[in-house]
Amino acid sequence: MSEPICIGVLGLGNVGAGVLEVLDRNADVLTQRTGKRLVVKTVLVHDLHKKRSVSLGSATLTVNAEDILNDPDIRIVVEVMGGEQPAYDYICAALRAGKYVVTANKEVVSKHKKTFFELARKHHTDIYFEASVGGGIPIIRSLKVGYAANQVKAFYGILNGTTNYILTQISEKNQSFEVALKTAQELGFAEADPTMDVSGLDTAYKLSILAAVALKSEVQVSDISYEGIEKVTLHDIRHAREMGYAIKLLAIGQQTGRGGISLRVHPTMIPLSHPLAHVRNELNALFMVGDMVGEAMLLGRGAGSLPTGSAVVSDIVDIVFDMAYEEPKRTQRNLEPHYEGAVLVDAGTVASQFYIRLWVADAPGTLAKLAAILGEWDISISKMMQQSVKNEVAELIIVTHSVLEKKMRQALSQIETLPEVKDIASLLHVGLDEGGL
Amino acid sequence: MSEPICIGVLGLGNVGAGVLEVLDRNADVLTQRTGKRLVVKTVLVHDLHKKRSVSLGSATLTVNAEDILNDPDIRIVVEVMGGEQPAYDYICAALRAGKYVVTANKEVVSKHKKTFFELARKHHTDIYFEASVGGGIPIIRSLKVGYAANQVKAFYGILNGTTNYILTQISEKNQSFEVALKTAQELGFAEADPTMDVSGLDTAYKLSILAAVALKSEVQVSDISYEGIEKVTLHDIRHAREMGYAIKLLAIGQQTGRGGISLRVHPTMIPLSHPLAHVRNELNALFMVGDMVGEAMLLGRGAGSLPTGSAVVSDIVDIVFDMAYEEPKRTQRNLEPHYEGAVLVDAGTVASQFYIRLWVADAPGTLAKLAAILGEWDISISKMMQQSVKNEVAELIIVTHSVLEKKMRQALSQIETLPEVKDIASLLHVGLDEGGL
Repeated sequence: MSEPICIGVLGLGNVGAGVLEVLDRNADVLTQRTGKRLVVKTVLVHDLHKKRSVSLGSATLTVNAEDILNDPDIRIVVEVMGGEQPAYDYICAALRAGKYVVTANKEVVSKHKKTFFELARKHHTDIYFEASVGGGIPIIRSLKVGYAANQVKAFYGILNGTTNYILTQISEKNQSFEVALKTAQELGFAEADPTMDVSGLDTAYKLSILAAVALKSEVQVSDISYEGIEKVTLHDIRHAREMGYAIKLLAIGQQTGRGGISLRVHPTMIPLSHPLAHVRNELNALFMVGDMVGEAMLLGRGAGSLPTGSAVVSDIVDIVFDMAYEEPKRTQRNLEPHYEGAVLVDAGTVASQFYIRLWVADAPGTLAKLAAILGEWDISISKMMQQSVKNEVAELIIVTHSVLEKKMRQALSQIETLPEVKDIASLLHVGLDEGGL
Repeated sequence: MSEPICIGVLGLGNVGAGVLEVLDRNADVLTQRTGKRLVVKTVLVHDLHKKRSVSLGSATLTVNAEDILNDPDIRIVVEVMGGEQPAYDYICAALRAGKYVVTANKEVVSKHKKTFFELARKHHTDIYFEASVGGGIPIIRSLKVGYAANQVKAFYGILNGTTNYILTQISEKNQSFEVALKTAQELGFAEADPTMDVSGLDTAYKLSILAAVALKSEVQVSDISYEGIEKVTLHDIRHAREMGYAIKLLAIGQQTGRGGISLRVHPTMIPLSHPLAHVRNELNALFMVGDMVGEAMLLGRGAGSLPTGSAVVSDIVDIVFDMAYEEPKRTQRNLEPHYEGAVLVDAGTVASQFYIRLWVADAPGTLAKLAAILGEWDISISKMMQQSVKNEVAELIIVTHSVLEKKMRQALSQIETLPEVKDIASLLHVGLDEGGL
């Protein structure tokens, strides 16, 4: 047996403990696969004396990152601290020292991927980040290797387990948003402060990483239009179900066919005949369309200690295969060799079907007025249903044919001024449109 | 730009044409990804003068395999002829010459994988076969790399597009088996002679390949118990649907927890809450349970010229990354370093729920007699439904709780002898049991 591969781990929270547990429990399998022993030498923690439930084996704990970053024995640095700083500084230092980096940190990868790719290239090393999107699902590896022969035309991801759990519970158990969120928190699927998940920001970070891998485009979250699930009600989910749809929070990336790309995050009504409609509870999935392979989907656990640990360790395995070779001949197979600024298409210029739920006066002529305004904006109606009447106010559901979002919003702002319209309660995208393809 | 990577292609049927088309249409993307130009130098065909619809570029056609196997410029040999011979001889010759081999041929890989692994190891080269299972879906790559940190506890695959198309059409359009088969043939999803697909043999070949990759076990098709979809009727599919199930032909592999593995192919009733139940028409999928990552699924096109070509070319990309290195330092990352004979558990010793449909005399006491026999064999009943009565014969559906298949069959052979029992029309496995885990 040749000498072991030494690994340093920055952070020993939920994910860090998962990495150690995977390396420990499947040590023999990993040695059979790679021909090497994978040994965690040093782990960076906040508190040396805190009781740990995970077995540390021969690893040493430290509170000084330099004990890992400056240790020439450590060839692979695993960053599982989360957040932008000090993760950013540590990753840069590791790459500058020629070490391989594996990270599970969506925020730091989303914000600084371009810098990391450049640093890694310069220092003949590589950075892997499978665990930063879709937890245990090998989404990034599949896009880079399994679908390497394809140009990705579009992808649609359910990338946040918390929101998907909440939407599933609302749908299947007729719960309110508040009750479903509370259950998710009790089960550990949602944070005490769920804003980052519920608002769509978490999904937007992951979308920007997939834009790099699938569309070879550098995009920051600040350039992505995102919308969360705060406004999705039990009401909408029930209506959707009756019409044959499930509501999911999607990260969408598309080549628009005009040299640009469209990126957005929003709740979407997905037909029940589509496999994404059946991704339940905390599961994540990515559905994609490749120009050669056609439609494809990956599904699995998007979070959790062991699934995320599994993704981190699979990155380590990939690295170990390449480490046999001397720099600078090393292939850096995970880097994006052709990575550019993106021409982002404005979300308003993307066509979609829409679902509108509104409360209107239950009086003759109201429907005619609504239909007239939609007609003026060239918006044709696929379905119109009056659901219930309360105190002379009727609940109306309209599903349109495909229309530019911009036009839809302009028509709605005109409809809003009608005295007969009491409230526009919901506006949702319907179906997986092809974004101009 | 460094010198091109020369590829030889054995066979120019449907898949061979797909390989050439993918390499041609995405040539620029592939060069960006690998830093190399990928050039098809020579293609083996039966008939030099046949008109070809695919662009051959600079490739030369030949009828002599030696023009490829003995050409030192050709580093990668793509075998897309299908069938056992002469594919076997050509692959052996290519490996002996130190060439990398990529094959889409399930039969030859299933039968000779052990020989191929040994030859490749000896000659410091490697053999890739992503396209042999699940067409364009990166099933093998995911098991080897994306889930490298896991031991696979069980997997369930829909690996034959023809049968899945037929089952979907029967279910969704209330078609008979014969009509659905005819449509599949007209659409090119089924062969003129569909026996290999419909009987489950095609699926069994693929199962034996997955046994090697996922369970590290050498198994031949002759050791796998397989059953096709010939006996599945519109009747059964409708009953299943009413009870909340879809019927799919599954390839099943499980670690039995007694050091053995269970492998089998049979139609299975899958609950509609499970994502495999929604894999429609010609799509394929693999659902797997890893000890670290938990449940995961891959879905996509399991056949067709371009999807299969996409898988072959993704293998080529992976090889090109490794070719930069000199033998014998090359990593041979696709080989199974720890590959053994398997302890196969007899199918009868695996527990499952069962669905039984039978015709019985519509007379008092019949149900009591049936229930008594099931009781004698310790088989408890989950559901019993009388469907219809015709000429004093009633159609009866029984769904059991989990029971060993052996016991189920013994009970049925006793039930068959009752004078009240006219016919045992169907026996189907229900649910994704955990095979003794």
